[in-house]
Amino acid sequence: MHPLDPLTPGEIIAAAKLVRSRNEGKGVHFKNITLIEPPKKDLREFLAAERKGSASPVTLTRRASALYYQKKGETLTADLFVATVDLGASVVEQVENLDTRYYGQADMDEVVEVRDKCLSHPKVIERIAKYRMPENLEVVCDTWPYGRDSDELNGRLAQCFLYAKDRSHPGSNAYDNPLPFSPIIDYTTKELVDIIELPIGSDHSLTPEAEYIPHPAKEWHHDLQTDPKRTDLKPLTVHQPAGASFTVDGHLVTWQKWRFRIGFNWREGMVLHDVTYDGRELFHRLSLSEMFVPYGDPRSPYSRKSVFDVGDIGAGVAANNLALGCDCLGLIKYFSFTLSDSNGKPVHKPNAICMHEIDDGIGWKHTDSATKTISITRSRVLVLQTIITVGNYDYIFAWNLDQAAALHYKIQATGILSTVPIAPGASVPWGVNVNHGVMAPYHQHIFSLRIDPALDGDKNSFVEEDSIAMPFDENNPVGVGYITEKRVLSTSGYSQAQPNRAHKIINPSVINKMSGRPVAYAIHSPQKQMLLAHPESWHGKRAKFALQPYWVTTHRDNELYASGEYTYQSLPDDVPGGNDAQKKGDLGAWAGRGDKVDNEDIVLWHSISLNHIVRVEDYPVMPCETMTVSLKPSGFFEHNPALDVPQSTQRVNQSVLYDERQRSCCEPKL
Amino acid sequence: MHPLDPLTPGEIIAAAKLVRSRNEGKGVHFKNITLIEPPKKDLREFLAAERKGSASPVTLTRRASALYYQKKGETLTADLFVATVDLGASVVEQVENLDTRYYGQADMDEVVEVRDKCLSHPKVIERIAKYRMPENLEVVCDTWPYGRDSDELNGRLAQCFLYAKDRSHPGSNAYDNPLPFSPIIDYTTKELVDIIELPIGSDHSLTPEAEYIPHPAKEWHHDLQTDPKRTDLKPLTVHQPAGASFTVDGHLVTWQKWRFRIGFNWREGMVLHDVTYDGRELFHRLSLSEMFVPYGDPRSPYSRKSVFDVGDIGAGVAANNLALGCDCLGLIKYFSFTLSDSNGKPVHKPNAICMHEIDDGIGWKHTDSATKTISITRSRVLVLQTIITVGNYDYIFAWNLDQAAALHYKIQATGILSTVPIAPGASVPWGVNVNHGVMAPYHQHIFSLRIDPALDGDKNSFVEEDSIAMPFDENNPVGVGYITEKRVLSTSGYSQAQPNRAHKIINPSVINKMSGRPVAYAIHSPQKQMLLAHPESWHGKRAKFALQPYWVTTHRDNELYASGEYTYQSLPDDVPGGNDAQKKGDLGAWAGRGDKVDNEDIVLWHSISLNHIVRVEDYPVMPCETMTVSLKPSGFFEHNPALDVPQSTQRVNQSVLYDERQRSCCEPKL
Repeated sequence: MHPLDPLTPGEIIAAAKLVRSRNEGKGVHFKNITLIEPPKKDLREFLAAERKGSASPVTLTRRASALYYQKKGETLTADLFVATVDLGASVVEQVENLDTRYYGQADMDEVVEVRDKCLSHPKVIERIAKYRMPENLEVVCDTWPYGRDSDELNGRLAQCFLYAKDRSHPGSNAYDNPLPFSPIIDYTTKELVDIIELPIGSDHSLTPEAEYIPHPAKEWHHDLQTDPKRTDLKPLTVHQPAGASFTVDGHLVTWQKWRFRIGFNWREGMVLHDVTYDGRELFHRLSLSEMFVPYGDPRSPYSRKSVFDVGDIGAGVAANNLALGCDCLGLIKYFSFTLSDSNGKPVHKPNAICMHEIDDGIGWKHTDSATKTISITRSRVLVLQTIITVGNYDYIFAWNLDQAAALHYKIQATGILSTVPIAPGASVPWGVNVNHGVMAPYHQHIFSLRIDPALDGDKNSFVEEDSIAMPFDENNPVGVGYITEKRVLSTSGYSQAQPNRAHKIINPSVINKMSGRPVAYAIHSPQKQMLLAHPESWHGKRAKFALQPYWVTTHRDNELYASGEYTYQSLPDDVPGGNDAQKKGDLGAWAGRGDKVDNEDIVLWHSISLNHIVRVEDYPVMPCETMTVSLKPSGFFEHNPALDVPQSTQRVNQSVLYDERQRSCCEPKL
Repeated sequence: MHPLDPLTPGEIIAAAKLVRSRNEGKGVHFKNITLIEPPKKDLREFLAAERKGSASPVTLTRRASALYYQKKGETLTADLFVATVDLGASVVEQVENLDTRYYGQADMDEVVEVRDKCLSHPKVIERIAKYRMPENLEVVCDTWPYGRDSDELNGRLAQCFLYAKDRSHPGSNAYDNPLPFSPIIDYTTKELVDIIELPIGSDHSLTPEAEYIPHPAKEWHHDLQTDPKRTDLKPLTVHQPAGASFTVDGHLVTWQKWRFRIGFNWREGMVLHDVTYDGRELFHRLSLSEMFVPYGDPRSPYSRKSVFDVGDIGAGVAANNLALGCDCLGLIKYFSFTLSDSNGKPVHKPNAICMHEIDDGIGWKHTDSATKTISITRSRVLVLQTIITVGNYDYIFAWNLDQAAALHYKIQATGILSTVPIAPGASVPWGVNVNHGVMAPYHQHIFSLRIDPALDGDKNSFVEEDSIAMPFDENNPVGVGYITEKRVLSTSGYSQAQPNRAHKIINPSVINKMSGRPVAYAIHSPQKQMLLAHPESWHGKRAKFALQPYWVTTHRDNELYASGEYTYQSLPDDVPGGNDAQKKGDLGAWAGRGDKVDNEDIVLWHSISLNHIVRVEDYPVMPCETMTVSLKPSGFFEHNPALDVPQSTQRVNQSVLYDERQRSCCEPKL
């Protein structure tokens, strides 16, 4: 076993058994069982030796953590524990009883239980009846994290949003019929706490007597389309007759001078470890640290509608089983993994990551103007893709590695808008009506990409590089000169985006022989609107990472999640009674330490923001909205790293002339 | 002939003959002969009738314009004329003798003549000899537009930058040996005006005694690589066994509900006309209006190093002959065109545009969380690509049309950096050393995309839509609400970019039935650093379009080029003795008219800026640097326009499992 290999089914079973043995006489409801990666210091030594093919100077222990609630008999308690298990020695090393202010994430078993409890509760059934819907509609329940709009410690809650879907098809669009009331269920007791009326007018007022009004349905599923399908789309297939260009050895992948290791866990989903190019270290670890989805509807209870999709639910848990020829086209390598359920049993996650190559247009080209001599390469890209479904939304995350030593993190949002009911004739300035009776509020998706760099080693720095017009003076006599000004961040904190600014990671000790400047990778990401909720709102305090686009901290083991370890209904660390920043903390606290970050083992956190001002065209299912962040060498190499890519030729690429094909195959038939 | 079809060889021959007949006894040096598109008013009527399949209510005349210098015998004069030719009636309708301050573009025949004159001039030969280069190097000459760094009317000039390349291969990298002096040649007289010494130190000082210093070459051409080529890249081929999904009728293309017409001319290269989707009008005309490449090196003569690649040279003139399986992969339709030379003879431009389909990942997907029912489409994209070579640089321009009614304009920069000589040990803050003795200055590429919209008709408006946090008050009690504020531009002018701002084209008279808001298309383009040269510099005055990202004007025929009709060594219109804004003008003048632009026939001009802070990795040939601008429906349709795209299936997509392939084909061989 490699120390970074995700847990096996056997390890999960063993860890669960060990944890149960420490809770004799009590039941255990597992929230998660997951690999604890070795301390970075040891891991780095191990990986360096491994890359050299030499024996590791350190012995690494495989450990797992288990987060669980205790039960009294069959009854769940609010007592949350985290256990550390040494899998090699088969011992529980440590158990911590967490403060009751920390909650576990919404695991799938509990979610299903709460759904059923909600829909079968007599008061909910009674309230639904008053809404008077036609017989063909059945009510479904989405259990939203309760978010937070006060400092109340009101227990671990689910905000249930209800929708009605046609019984006749499992893919009928429930979000086309949002119900105007919302039950709240206590996750611990599974009791109904309240049924809240939702505002359906143009303001905060309530109209609880409103009854269902029929409207023409908008369906997303193929089977249910009433308009004819397009018939003029001809097949397009991708072939690699000589096989794939990559090699796979367990979770180790090599391709086109790249070498890296794939990880996967319940929370972050896909992780890339120990990324090198042409034998040079680039990144120790690349992961989706968190994502936050706050809604801009200011009315209660929508004002607490905000989800940490990574911390509250888990990108690994929500990963799709990717299908050949549908999610992925060409010659596809799938990676499957194992997670755990609330009983500590293994849950197979088949095809959670797909890997394949694509042609991405031209890599580089030049034509000599005088001699007309041409040299050209096509750009081959290695795609590592995972897709998650979180309630109504679906997200596609992909690392795209190219032949010029750049990594591109591509985020696509698709799926269905979160919808709320709206009365006839009403409209609001914080959302768009997408069907009769259906409003989709504006919202943001803010992702935290955690970048643990290792450019030629661990000691790196973070630089703001601004392009500055030179003053109009004797050194710049006609006013056209401009230069770059570099500022190395000396202490941990954040950096803002500006149109004239580049952000670079450098190794100050390694000087590029050509430029005479430290070797660097740049983070290319367009300037975006950051969190629109007030910094002093609960959204602002709970998701501080979303307030700024770039953050830098010193590396510490276990500082992996930008909004903290326990995000579910989290209280910000600066609120009385809130989380203890010294103990758990979040990115705001870590960056606030004022650590020296120049020429240190640093971590970059890039917040990628999508301000989703909803379009009618995003409904009833949303064409992919794409954002890409690129990590590109910027004076890291001494020339174009793709210079050795073979010339693109028709002999290899086997393309076909449309006009010839028309002549040879189609015209005779006319 | 369709009124928008590019000129045929016969038409070019006829136009040239007619022009010659008007210049009896005098020679003619043609700068260009190009189609004059019909007046928009008439053209719109024609196109509307054509789309309906009915007879045109107007008769359109095919006209060409010819720009030419008169000759006295074999001697070129500075007398520039523009003739308008009625091709149907075979008459020259009008000839205008242009003011001597206007210059024609650098045509290829003149460029070759000046190259040869420069390199064969005894003083140039003498100066080269003093530089003492080894025998294997031969000098080549790039004729740069002279740019402008003063208001001098010093004739039509070429700034010749010299480089030395190895004689042994036609693709050896001349830019690796930039020479430290620059001849200036007069285009009219072909005489040498001066040989300027170039600064090669860290400042403005000159060292004219410098001699050639050898260094290891960096070569871009495949034949000349000394490092071994990659051998692990396996072929990837794209097939469309049932043919292409598009249809082509002359220059008319239909594909997936899209219908448009392809145009091409010497200046703009590829143009899209009359773009409709599902029968609804979207854009009357889409074109690359201009591009400006100013350099940030403040030293003379680099301070005038600035090129209007469209107006000074021509994107059509510079278009590559695209090769099957190299520039384009899959089933490819090529379009070829005809331009003209200085003798008025047709010049064939084969394969100047390629068109093909690509798979662009997932179009949309959703998994029902409760029932696990899935619906998924892949995204097919139609690519229209043209590639131009302008001296050292190469640009790839592509319109990508998707199935969800969005158009994406993709610009890629590749080729070779513009290099200048630098002395050993020297470095500058406005550029990067990319090889020993070779410095590449920072520069910008600023493109003007001209968007003539016709959203459900000509009467459109331009809107700034800002996302604004609501104040923390009783209407927004927990501070999370945000709304959009829309501002319709009432008079012509510009609009700035902000991270919270969307720019939309609307038809205020057509209301979307779902949203209740005017139908709209948004321009999605990240906020970028605009021109870094001072607005009062010559660069700022000559390329006003580059100062702001969005401009709106009322439509007027012949207002096509953002920096004016005659860009070569252009004088800004507000300079005494400069261009007459009322007569020719530029975008600054047109936008400055203060025309009413709300609910009018408007034109949008989007300036797309790439601030090229050079990387060592961009040398000796640059991996494609990509920028994409998207025109996306935003409440134009009443639901996702790609809802009728067929479900993605393995039966059609014929993908292959890596693990099965390994088992079936590879493992037995081991």
